[in-house]
Amino acid sequence: MTTRAPSPTHLAEALEALRERPPLVQCLTNTVAMNWTANALLAVGATPAMVDNPEEAAAFARVADGVLVNLGTPQGLTVGAMSEAVGGAGESSTPWVLDPIAAGSLPWRTEIAVGLLDRGPAVVRGNASEVRGLLGGEGGRGPDSTHDPESALDAATELARRHGTVVAVSGRIDHITDGERLVRVANGHDQLTRVTGIGCCLGALMAGFAARTQDPLTAAVAATSLLTVAAEDAAATTEGPGSFAVALLDRLYATDAAQLADRALLS
Amino acid sequence: MTTRAPSPTHLAEALEALRERPPLVQCLTNTVAMNWTANALLAVGATPAMVDNPEEAAAFARVADGVLVNLGTPQGLTVGAMSEAVGGAGESSTPWVLDPIAAGSLPWRTEIAVGLLDRGPAVVRGNASEVRGLLGGEGGRGPDSTHDPESALDAATELARRHGTVVAVSGRIDHITDGERLVRVANGHDQLTRVTGIGCCLGALMAGFAARTQDPLTAAVAATSLLTVAAEDAAATTEGPGSFAVALLDRLYATDAAQLADRALLS
Amino acid sequence: MTTRAPSPTHLAEALEALRERPPLVQCLTNTVAMNWTANALLAVGATPAMVDNPEEAAAFARVADGVLVNLGTPQGLTVGAMSEAVGGAGESSTPWVLDPIAAGSLPWRTEIAVGLLDRGPAVVRGNASEVRGLLGGEGGRGPDSTHDPESALDAATELARRHGTVVAVSGRIDHITDGERLVRVANGHDQLTRVTGIGCCLGALMAGFAARTQDPLTAAVAATSLLTVAAEDAAATTEGPGSFAVALLDRLYATDAAQLADRALLS
Repeated sequence: MTTRAPSPTHLAEALEALRERPPLVQCLTNTVAMNWTANALLAVGATPAMVDNPEEAAAFARVADGVLVNLGTPQGLTVGAMSEAVGGAGESSTPWVLDPIAAGSLPWRTEIAVGLLDRGPAVVRGNASEVRGLLGGEGGRGPDSTHDPESALDAATELARRHGTVVAVSGRIDHITDGERLVRVANGHDQLTRVTGIGCCLGALMAGFAARTQDPLTAAVAATSLLTVAAEDAAATTEGPGSFAVALLDRLYATDAAQLADRALLS
Repeated sequence: MTTRAPSPTHLAEALEALRERPPLVQCLTNTVAMNWTANALLAVGATPAMVDNPEEAAAFARVADGVLVNLGTPQGLTVGAMSEAVGGAGESSTPWVLDPIAAGSLPWRTEIAVGLLDRGPAVVRGNASEVRGLLGGEGGRGPDSTHDPESALDAATELARRHGTVVAVSGRIDHITDGERLVRVANGHDQLTRVTGIGCCLGALMAGFAARTQDPLTAAVAATSLLTVAAEDAAATTEGPGSFAVALLDRLYATDAAQLADRALLS
Repeated sequence: MTTRAPSPTHLAEALEALRERPPLVQCLTNTVAMNWTANALLAVGATPAMVDNPEEAAAFARVADGVLVNLGTPQGLTVGAMSEAVGGAGESSTPWVLDPIAAGSLPWRTEIAVGLLDRGPAVVRGNASEVRGLLGGEGGRGPDSTHDPESALDAATELARRHGTVVAVSGRIDHITDGERLVRVANGHDQLTRVTGIGCCLGALMAGFAARTQDPLTAAVAATSLLTVAAEDAAATTEGPGSFAVALLDRLYATDAAQLADRALLS
């Protein structure tokens, strides 16, 4: 871990790389966020494909450029497909992102999440309660975090070191670490918590960036900055969560690399 | 049943109670309406969680504040989860809402709906055909009602008395009864029938209000009034169903208790 | 096949017929596009019903006016329901549309698609890669086409003749043929590729038009023209994919028969 923390310039390069060669991102995600996630990937410039059945998940992961595994609404069959996809991704060294929704608060999915964690995700994205929940801590109240990101920093660092992964803790200030480097992203807006599936789409964007950026930490920071900078612009022109969500897709589409570098509040 | 019918002031109090202490609403609902339903709950101020697998549904219902069971797109596994959730809700006295989509028109789900009805929902919400269908009447044409709410009033009253529940018949004028009291809500707009999942989200809002309001009839009337008042405002500024749906979320977010009390057309 | 190719007047008549007597369209479609598809059908004036479980699919297909079978996110159970629905549609001579998403690129679903093709769809809608994939050609990259519609014209003609069906190849210029007649639709806009589920909703619209129009070629051309004319108008007033999608629903609702006939670019 001798690489330096990503700078705004690195984020701009990551976005340019993604748009130059649109990555195919396979999403095994929850039924609530599927549509929004696909639209966010398209807006940014990636190609989504929601191949989440056990028959095809592994074969598709071998040709995909990035994979998202999100535990929002797990069912027996789709959990089987997730395991297949992770296997296929492993065979082709495709980076994949684990989003352990509600880990720590529901035993069945916590066990699934911990099992997936052992299989080498490039990035783990969650809120503070979920990240603590992966280490045996008590989770939040369903999908909501009952902790702030700062409080999960020790857990995130330990998880990152133990599993050789990047851990991104979402919240008012996002904390993203690979166990050595730590980047805080201070962009964002309260309306992000009023639209369902935004956190879920962030995991998918990370998979898209990881497909085109060597350093997974840079990929996670780039995705987080892009989403939160776009959110600031979307909130500036709208007054409620319905129009905010629409404007957010427009801004994910319109925000360019120079704006991203200029606006990202990293520390 | 000596309580009086809810007044506009009661609706305002219900909305304030919901926003002061956001209820966690577990939704076992159809795949079409999931995203919209979650966004409507968030807009109003509640916290949605779509935990609909058989492994977790009961445990989650025991910690949720309200539960929605909607039969829009039942599958074998999710029907099993619904039964689990209703069991968990029963153990913790969590109020739950039954939305028997297309009951009366399809035998398999009609039987499921009738079975669930026996297990004590706080509110049953449906259109006139569905409410009649629960009593053995012929249902509508798929999800559409072929009857008007007035025509289902006898059926609604009988259902409410027999099962000790509130029955809400949606339509141009909503009719809501607990078998003794009857409240009509005359707000609304035609565009409500041009957006999918609006009726489904109404059931979820009822579950959210029931979590914070002692009287289920008041909860059902408050949810109905909020949605239909918001719809009037949304329709006033838009020209088609796409922008109407966006504005409706904005208005669910912005409408406050005083406006609700002022605008609700109860009789 | 002595009928002449549909003229703009035929398209106007098809739209009027659909709006006069709203068809009930059963959709067995992917979880990503369900919500958007239902909203598009409602906007145009049809009634969607997503009955996609094996227990009810056949019975519902017998009373539906049109059926869509879309292979976007097939799962074991829903594939069983698709087979049931096609059986029910066959018994009642209900027209149904096959959308073989990613056929040719994933063996499991390609076999399913080829099996369904043998059972008599009124229309097959896909991109160039999918249409070639049905004849044993190599498919695209997941849901994306790697070929242009022109290149799939021979395959489309052969498929149409062999199976007595209409084949609609979507792309920058849509090519639609029944094996004898060929219609090109030149309307459209790039933003159509930036919103998920648009192609999927086109299949559903074709099922709706086929329910009210004798000639399946005319139905497919009418649905394609309506969607792409609406897209041109939506793109003229918006700047990103979020607001474009909202405006597209508004335009599907507002575009009338005269405008459709006036604007459709057929050759």
